[in-house]
Amino acid sequence: MAKRVFVIGAGATKVGEHWDRSLRDLAVEALLAAIKDAGIDKRDVEALYVGNMMSGELQGQEHLGALVATWAGMVGVAAFKVEAACASGGAALHQAYLAAASGLYDCVAVVGVEKMTDALPSDVTSALLTAEDQEYVVFTGATFVGLNALVYRMYLTKYGVKQEDVARFAVHCHKMAVNNPYAQFRREATLEDVMSSPLIADPIRLLECAPVGDGAAALVLCNEDFLRRNSHDVLVEVAGSAVATDVLSVHERKDPLAMAGSRKAAEAAMKRAGIEAKDVDVLEVHDAFTILGILTLEALGYAPPGKGWQLVAEGELEPGGKIPTNTMGGLKARGHPVGGTGIYQVFDIVRQLRGEAGPSQVEGAEIGLAQNLGGVAGTVVIHVLRRVR
Amino acid sequence: MAKRVFVIGAGATKVGEHWDRSLRDLAVEALLAAIKDAGIDKRDVEALYVGNMMSGELQGQEHLGALVATWAGMVGVAAFKVEAACASGGAALHQAYLAAASGLYDCVAVVGVEKMTDALPSDVTSALLTAEDQEYVVFTGATFVGLNALVYRMYLTKYGVKQEDVARFAVHCHKMAVNNPYAQFRREATLEDVMSSPLIADPIRLLECAPVGDGAAALVLCNEDFLRRNSHDVLVEVAGSAVATDVLSVHERKDPLAMAGSRKAAEAAMKRAGIEAKDVDVLEVHDAFTILGILTLEALGYAPPGKGWQLVAEGELEPGGKIPTNTMGGLKARGHPVGGTGIYQVFDIVRQLRGEAGPSQVEGAEIGLAQNLGGVAGTVVIHVLRRVR
Repeated sequence: MAKRVFVIGAGATKVGEHWDRSLRDLAVEALLAAIKDAGIDKRDVEALYVGNMMSGELQGQEHLGALVATWAGMVGVAAFKVEAACASGGAALHQAYLAAASGLYDCVAVVGVEKMTDALPSDVTSALLTAEDQEYVVFTGATFVGLNALVYRMYLTKYGVKQEDVARFAVHCHKMAVNNPYAQFRREATLEDVMSSPLIADPIRLLECAPVGDGAAALVLCNEDFLRRNSHDVLVEVAGSAVATDVLSVHERKDPLAMAGSRKAAEAAMKRAGIEAKDVDVLEVHDAFTILGILTLEALGYAPPGKGWQLVAEGELEPGGKIPTNTMGGLKARGHPVGGTGIYQVFDIVRQLRGEAGPSQVEGAEIGLAQNLGGVAGTVVIHVLRRVR
Repeated sequence: MAKRVFVIGAGATKVGEHWDRSLRDLAVEALLAAIKDAGIDKRDVEALYVGNMMSGELQGQEHLGALVATWAGMVGVAAFKVEAACASGGAALHQAYLAAASGLYDCVAVVGVEKMTDALPSDVTSALLTAEDQEYVVFTGATFVGLNALVYRMYLTKYGVKQEDVARFAVHCHKMAVNNPYAQFRREATLEDVMSSPLIADPIRLLECAPVGDGAAALVLCNEDFLRRNSHDVLVEVAGSAVATDVLSVHERKDPLAMAGSRKAAEAAMKRAGIEAKDVDVLEVHDAFTILGILTLEALGYAPPGKGWQLVAEGELEPGGKIPTNTMGGLKARGHPVGGTGIYQVFDIVRQLRGEAGPSQVEGAEIGLAQNLGGVAGTVVIHVLRRVR
């Protein structure tokens, strides 16, 4: 019987352009903040998971487990890097969860980190493309935004939807980020701003894309055995954690709009948590591009296929709406330091469930769900969090 | 209570220069061989772990979890890449073990893979250096072999040992590889061959270094719940699995010869398995350089500090000796496709425990221990395997 696992600490750096700090600095800052928040000694942490995608390509640095352990003053701890493209953070959290659930570790930490602004934009573009099939897709000259543009165009054509209705997802995210001190862009953007921003890959506009940024977020998890030895007034449980893959390359999928991996992983995570989609109070979706946010709302069952955009138009994604989504700004405006994103999403949910979300608070939020995507949804990680006291 | 975990399938490619196959081809070949060996359907596998260090740098390819899942025809499976430098294979196996031990997955697969020969030697050297601290060590111009040379020189000086006595470890490995059909170098090398081979970084000679090569090895693990539904005549248990870090950079360690991580991880893994070092029938050590093999023998307690080389000189590492070690050739001669190595080590031990080791068979072998190192022993992974029927 797997042990129950809880989030007892959470910390993060602001997302942004951190010219004064390196990847290790960001990781250590977030990690120590989470350990401090947990009220434990760092020597209590038995295993350390680092979620990161591009440190090899952008920093010439692998072996982040031992690196971060050394720089955080945690030498000796079991340490690992976990990679699953843009879902690296979520994937690392899943491993941390399994470690604590197994009972072979009682207290573990996970930090998701990416440092993207030290590199040339062309190098970042290349590094992001390592998420796709190098031999059969990247070789053709495809870019990551280009591949998402194909999915976007297919959606607009198949359902006769106007681009403005999809693009409005970015307007929502910018509005939500205003009150988030950790967000990269704490400013609103109008629909006109979005639609008049430069065209990156038809139809995707600049302001429909998550930005490049630096940041790290961390969580401390423990199982029920560790909890007995420590007290926490407010407690959030990892009620469900599941991962699924889809066919790696979008052009080989039967239905590129179906998000089969999201359906599968969400079903498994919700089943484990004993909840249904309607029970979710706060949702974090992986809106690397606006279209991915809309498709996720449909894949998770919050809207029929082709109708996800209506939730945005009707304000249902805001606190008080039907399904409050990306209440801290999402990838679009909170930011998307790639390997960090999966952890930032859970960090954002934990703040909501603890009632620490300030002006963005969803009243009485008890259950949150985070969806983290790798590649064009080739890997999907779903976490269900529940406040248990 | 963590569930017991067993190795029910093992497969590998020969290590070598596979010009006709790409990284994914090697991974899929080994993975499907392991699944076939397990006698299960690939749809039984619920999670897939890929151990790999350098695919981002050398192939421009990350997201190996979804890539291998797709190409192996296992779309849907939860899939991850785990990285811990040269210990990536062992680290991935540790995660696979935790997954099955947790009971949240009943049957999982792990494949370790590296494709090194498609790249320029200078690029391979750079990629290997991502294991070390980029900002404080690599920046000075240090190379990986150079760092190990410092440790080697320190050992020779401190204990007054002759280089020939350390270098003889390579002679042993070459002798062992002759009977291993999976080995990269199935030929003997004399001590004169080793000592007259080119000097790479004083005092390390070419034939004291593990070679560059391509290869993949895979294992299928299951827990006791899955086992009840399947029968296996011969069965090997993962009796212990532990990971420890040391200070990342060797120059910052109190005692660079102590291998503190190896001691810590071995102690934890053996404790869990309920054994002592003397109970081990077959040993696999991470001899990326001869000196690492010798230091490991000392760290694990098979010889006092400064005396590990005597075991080689006295033939105690051969089948029938005190502690049969690297009986399939070790990194030196079986080969060292980096991310694959940690899995090859366990693959080699499994063959011994099953009695499938041919002329290299250690009679009556029941317990094996594998030690996989990342960087200059910055990460250490120890697995204890036991034949249970």
